[in-house]
Amino acid sequence: MAVYTEPSDDELRDFLAEYAIGDALSCKGIAEGVENSNFLLVTTQGPFILTLYEKRVDPADLPFFLDLMQHLAGKGVGCPLPVNGKDGRALRTLAGRPAAIITFLTGMWPRKITVEHCRALGTALAALHVAGADFPHVRRNSLSLDGWRSLAASCVARADACEAGLAAAITTELAELEQAWPSELPVGVIHADLFPDNVFFQDAKLTGLIDFYFACTDALAYDLVICLNAWCFEPDGAFNATKARALMRAYVAVRPLNQAELAALPVLARGASLRFLLTRLYDWLNRVDGALVRVKDPLEYARKLRFHRQVRDAGEYGLD
Amino acid sequence: MAVYTEPSDDELRDFLAEYAIGDALSCKGIAEGVENSNFLLVTTQGPFILTLYEKRVDPADLPFFLDLMQHLAGKGVGCPLPVNGKDGRALRTLAGRPAAIITFLTGMWPRKITVEHCRALGTALAALHVAGADFPHVRRNSLSLDGWRSLAASCVARADACEAGLAAAITTELAELEQAWPSELPVGVIHADLFPDNVFFQDAKLTGLIDFYFACTDALAYDLVICLNAWCFEPDGAFNATKARALMRAYVAVRPLNQAELAALPVLARGASLRFLLTRLYDWLNRVDGALVRVKDPLEYARKLRFHRQVRDAGEYGLD
Repeated sequence: MAVYTEPSDDELRDFLAEYAIGDALSCKGIAEGVENSNFLLVTTQGPFILTLYEKRVDPADLPFFLDLMQHLAGKGVGCPLPVNGKDGRALRTLAGRPAAIITFLTGMWPRKITVEHCRALGTALAALHVAGADFPHVRRNSLSLDGWRSLAASCVARADACEAGLAAAITTELAELEQAWPSELPVGVIHADLFPDNVFFQDAKLTGLIDFYFACTDALAYDLVICLNAWCFEPDGAFNATKARALMRAYVAVRPLNQAELAALPVLARGASLRFLLTRLYDWLNRVDGALVRVKDPLEYARKLRFHRQVRDAGEYGLD
Repeated sequence: MAVYTEPSDDELRDFLAEYAIGDALSCKGIAEGVENSNFLLVTTQGPFILTLYEKRVDPADLPFFLDLMQHLAGKGVGCPLPVNGKDGRALRTLAGRPAAIITFLTGMWPRKITVEHCRALGTALAALHVAGADFPHVRRNSLSLDGWRSLAASCVARADACEAGLAAAITTELAELEQAWPSELPVGVIHADLFPDNVFFQDAKLTGLIDFYFACTDALAYDLVICLNAWCFEPDGAFNATKARALMRAYVAVRPLNQAELAALPVLARGASLRFLLTRLYDWLNRVDGALVRVKDPLEYARKLRFHRQVRDAGEYGLD
């Protein structure tokens, strides 16, 4: 939950004057998105989302994210659409931060994941990958091997404060992934952060995807195993093979995986586990007293990593 | 900013089925109200506020708060109106908490206070007091002398950790207020927490008041000095006499103060300062690592207390 920056009355009024979206009736900080400040802005034309991009987002990346949403929405993918101001620009400045208004996506993210949610997610993720195939821009994934290496370097010395043996597990895993990481898989635009709070449903129907601020160019199958991790484990840590099968089969029904992708799934899933283990561990080790963000448990992903290390093939994920 | 409880999908669906307010399109936790969990619920009929009452609110007090909003709204005071379910009841249970849906009040709370805001507040506060005159229910103010005494008892031993000399200042002030606290002033329903984030404006016009969960029966003039403290000091701690005069004169133009109230204003203002000093100090001393609520500065109110201790009469507040 996050509202880091509060625009002043004058700043907000001047900012909204740049748009033709009616008069503001209300603007409330919302508890969504941990990286940026988000407001639900209600105008005489209806609800919108106002986002102020905070320091974790590189302003140079914002055109990529906003263009991507525009590209995907244009192809029928359910996602918010950046709203252009009267000058035709979607990106401007508010309270000293880069800021944009995006359309309001109806629906709610599921608090309790069902097999049906996973099935709908698989279909939507594949549709996203297909729709992104001709997106012309490229953004390197800063949270792939290079990023893990530097995160690991800044974490391992203190990692055992989180769990005994964690430093060694990270060092071993990173060394193995450096050897085993595939480089010849189909690549394209991936969401890279499709956790349940970024997927909206209404009456069991998936209405769209939000929060494209980790989107980048990487192996498409890697996006799929990020979802596998985020959606197919139970709160007690157990892998739910039924959910995994629903997710995977719905995905391949729209975009089949080739043999190299199928073979790479377990190592990709280990990478996806290490990625969230490391960012969560970094946040956990550097948590600040009084900060307004709940620090997520790194060990949830240490356990997922151990699970994937004993997986032999994609059959265990439901693709036999 | 506060979302302590997240209802599950099923709980929310079953809860909303008890109302005739259309189908839910969205439900987002909002960063408003530090005591309860608040959600902006958008249905096919428009926006509403869903509140789950957390542990700081005594469930036995909820009918008082909800009836009061209904009473005030019925008299034309701008405030949210509790929405009754199909069974005619406004108060029910969600995710194990007492919960209610209230109407959505348009407007935004002012981030930067102007003299005009203070003037509009004075008028609205007096109108609230007048409209509450025939409200039939009584709720004792648990945060008056008795409450301060027990808060002080639990804080003084560690108070000097916040500021050297604070324990002695609290003890002295409490003893003096025990002697000087007036008991013959006009009494009625007071809001008791009318800080800027509880007062909404649109285009400089006050649209209404929210968050009645500290409302109680107490001296009306005490409510006025709570506002004086919350609205008429600058961020650097300076008392703004122009804002005070605007607030005070707008108030008395609607509800004149009698001589006893005028004479009591400085001591009431000291009490209002001690009240927020003590609750903030308690929260500061008992703050929890990783909690999602920003702890407010107790010393802001220690400074206001010192200011009011040297005020001679109501003339210094603008009522000469």
